[in-house]
Amino acid sequence: MINVYFAAGQALWPKYEGPLRAALAEAGLQADVGADCPAPDLVDYIVFAPGGEIQDFTPFTRCKAVLNLWAGVERIVTNQTLTQPLCRMVDPALTAGMVEWVLGHSLRHHLGMDRHIINPTHKWDPTCPPIAAERAVTVLGLGALGQACAVALQGIGFKVRGWSRTAKAVAGLETFHGDQGLQSALTGAEIVVLLLPKTPETENILNAESLAWPARGAAILNPGRGHLIDDAALLAALDTGAIGHATLDVFRQEPLPAGHPFWAHPRVTVTPHVAAETRPNSASRVVVENIRRGEAGLPFVHLVDRSLGY
Amino acid sequence: MINVYFAAGQALWPKYEGPLRAALAEAGLQADVGADCPAPDLVDYIVFAPGGEIQDFTPFTRCKAVLNLWAGVERIVTNQTLTQPLCRMVDPALTAGMVEWVLGHSLRHHLGMDRHIINPTHKWDPTCPPIAAERAVTVLGLGALGQACAVALQGIGFKVRGWSRTAKAVAGLETFHGDQGLQSALTGAEIVVLLLPKTPETENILNAESLAWPARGAAILNPGRGHLIDDAALLAALDTGAIGHATLDVFRQEPLPAGHPFWAHPRVTVTPHVAAETRPNSASRVVVENIRRGEAGLPFVHLVDRSLGY
Repeated sequence: MINVYFAAGQALWPKYEGPLRAALAEAGLQADVGADCPAPDLVDYIVFAPGGEIQDFTPFTRCKAVLNLWAGVERIVTNQTLTQPLCRMVDPALTAGMVEWVLGHSLRHHLGMDRHIINPTHKWDPTCPPIAAERAVTVLGLGALGQACAVALQGIGFKVRGWSRTAKAVAGLETFHGDQGLQSALTGAEIVVLLLPKTPETENILNAESLAWPARGAAILNPGRGHLIDDAALLAALDTGAIGHATLDVFRQEPLPAGHPFWAHPRVTVTPHVAAETRPNSASRVVVENIRRGEAGLPFVHLVDRSLGY
Repeated sequence: MINVYFAAGQALWPKYEGPLRAALAEAGLQADVGADCPAPDLVDYIVFAPGGEIQDFTPFTRCKAVLNLWAGVERIVTNQTLTQPLCRMVDPALTAGMVEWVLGHSLRHHLGMDRHIINPTHKWDPTCPPIAAERAVTVLGLGALGQACAVALQGIGFKVRGWSRTAKAVAGLETFHGDQGLQSALTGAEIVVLLLPKTPETENILNAESLAWPARGAAILNPGRGHLIDDAALLAALDTGAIGHATLDVFRQEPLPAGHPFWAHPRVTVTPHVAAETRPNSASRVVVENIRRGEAGLPFVHLVDRSLGY
């Protein structure tokens, strides 16, 4: 029997218990897995997340690997008591989830779904939307997630432009870059998707000036970072109708505080940081793959190089 | 100057005026186009739809072609006074629009968007949906529209099964057929898309028995035909939670009558027959292409064979 200690926090355990047990069974591994710490010297594998219970890894003398649930390991890699192999999470479902959120909310705004979902007067108005080929979408940020979303949006027919701070070529995609290119990328866009990283240069990239560049009534989708938008400027643009709607998944403070104007604004949809998350099902398979490898004496995947720190 | 008489009904004229003028300009054609009948013997082209103004085509002695706005010509082809060439509409945007509606509403149900769009208590619940690869979607009907939707749903990652009355192979798609295959196709489906034609065999194909086969809480999307669903059985299944939601674009009577239980049911979304329509922009380009051909002495496209009736 393999002992797996889920030390990623009691709050996560209900979400991971089923998927972890299913992945272990799927791999044919007989394991005892739980969120209560067994005798440390009996633990074979630790499933970890920053904020979990363990500060001192010394008593886990039999532990073959610490399997991190998140991609980032910056908060654990500096722990001097951690001498066991450390693996980070690379979750293929994170990109898939992000693409689905972006496609779904782009189509929602494109089709004007909200007026059918919320239709208290039971109005029958058979006005059709244009087709996606007539809808201009701009994606700010062409990293792995931005590129995946831009390509997927183009794949279902939208007219897509991409923008990044430094020049990036993406096969088949019209791209712009730098301060000079930002206005060209945004002008006339009816849907704007924010997928830029958090850097000093990207803070408030959507501000009073740049919010005036998209088409009047454009929708803003932000599954990237909260700080990309000047919140006050966005609220002002929503109030004038310059921006028609904002669907926001990330915020400067999360959970979004009760009483924040985004909650009650009729032109804002708050999604609670659900666009891209490590998913229990796929993450459990990655964790279990490393347990399988450890038991079979094979090298771990996504092993952290302690000298590099990632 | 070419005289184009828009005889498809005054109600449609506001939707077509801009697109028709734009398409004519784009084609470099100098034309006078309007919805008020000029002197019949001055009309070069008639844009027509059943329910339009003209009963007798005899006075239109100079007319080079009657350009129908709809695909179906069964109501005009029998008109004995119509001796001019008759062209039907083949609108590439109709398929595109259908695919977008199906993708959009599938993603809406998949992502659980409604709980974010309607969230009066401002609840922050960061529970992520599964990814599309874990979501079973079944498309009933594998005609041109059904196939296009099934392939597009598969393209964005859903687990798709298709069903048709008679066996049909679609590359890369798991398919079922016939009465025997229907239960296999529907069992466990979390999203069911109805794109069957209107025939005696397809009436009430979703009924009290077959509505029990999908996964509990499944979403039904009907952009096909109103008669495919036994409405009373659907309402009963929604009330028990066997079916979680129905998003309906077509109805036995349209517009859906005020007071119909679908309007007020909390688990029903009514979209007012917008999934697949001839679109003014693309249809105007098809109309103008035939005007261009007529002026250039070229054969018309989508010309109706009067002996066959289509």
